[in-house]
Amino acid sequence: MAPLTLHEDPRSGNCYKIALTAALLGLPLARKAYDITRGETRTPEFLAHINANGRIPVLQIGEGADARFLPESNAACWYLAHGSALIPADRFAQADMLRWMFFEQYNHEPNVATLRFWVSILGEDNLSPEQRAAIPAKRAGGDAALALMDRHLEDNAFFCGDAPSLADIALFAYTHVAGEGGFTLSDYPAVQAWIARIEALPGFVPMD
Amino acid sequence: MAPLTLHEDPRSGNCYKIALTAALLGLPLARKAYDITRGETRTPEFLAHINANGRIPVLQIGEGADARFLPESNAACWYLAHGSALIPADRFAQADMLRWMFFEQYNHEPNVATLRFWVSILGEDNLSPEQRAAIPAKRAGGDAALALMDRHLEDNAFFCGDAPSLADIALFAYTHVAGEGGFTLSDYPAVQAWIARIEALPGFVPMD
Repeated sequence: MAPLTLHEDPRSGNCYKIALTAALLGLPLARKAYDITRGETRTPEFLAHINANGRIPVLQIGEGADARFLPESNAACWYLAHGSALIPADRFAQADMLRWMFFEQYNHEPNVATLRFWVSILGEDNLSPEQRAAIPAKRAGGDAALALMDRHLEDNAFFCGDAPSLADIALFAYTHVAGEGGFTLSDYPAVQAWIARIEALPGFVPMD
Repeated sequence: MAPLTLHEDPRSGNCYKIALTAALLGLPLARKAYDITRGETRTPEFLAHINANGRIPVLQIGEGADARFLPESNAACWYLAHGSALIPADRFAQADMLRWMFFEQYNHEPNVATLRFWVSILGEDNLSPEQRAAIPAKRAGGDAALALMDRHLEDNAFFCGDAPSLADIALFAYTHVAGEGGFTLSDYPAVQAWIARIEALPGFVPMD
């Protein structure tokens, strides 16, 4: 495989998903750090060559003139896991795995990850009035996502059956640090047991 | 294939994605309508049997005791298009298609679709103060998403190369009705030309 480079902010759970996928698969991954709070992913060079959307993570595949760039954390995980056991082969199971990954980006990340970013990285004193007004809805949305996960994990070891898949990696990234956004993980015991199962996987690496 | 049923609100672009995918593939699809503004997807029966997340669309595969349920519009499209030309086989192209589909759910739908829902379906007079406060950020986010699409489509007939894929279907659903949310599509001429290409595809069906 061509050399792989992760353009990341090491505090970002979206970036960690890709690093964790590579680690579980035993794939070497170079890492290049940016500070999103200093606008380092909005420079003209970043926008022109790495991601016109001005966001990390971006997975770079290859180097120099042949390099290709893949934004969106869950798409990058999909690229890395192509043909591996982290993507179920069965038609329904594969779609069901993607269902949890889209749920993660739509119902979970904008609530659980955004509150962590606001509370622990930006700091509550630095929020705009619009951000402050949005906190209660994001708190409720994040708790609803965690409760839905908890009910599913009461009957399932992993999100898609008996083995870990990309759905678990995608949802683990911000769930295991949800406390940093003010969520109470002990309210979700099945989620806590699942976090322990993920952390016990061979090749697991913690977030920086 | 087992009988397919779409649980939908016909005004929802997320539901339309699934109907359009089925039409382009020539797959028969039964449809069961709910009114989300009347809470018809939050009833105990819906939550217990169809989607614990209380949302449509849900693709039902099979009937009776053997039925399986797949929430999340883009995951349902993936299930339908399995093995078809709407999903590129190449490893990078497949991940790149998913990249645009995750972009759609994270950067596009929460802005472009939500403003359409607020303006054209709920009505501006019925919005909460928090929703009103969120309008400027959603307007800016939606215009940024449309501008990014426009730049990509200046050089590409479709989102992933020369042929339509699920990325086009996912992004078409709310883009072609963005005017109902107050966006000005004539500001994005490459997007307008792409809309015309989608509408000319064999098997295309319009939104209800």
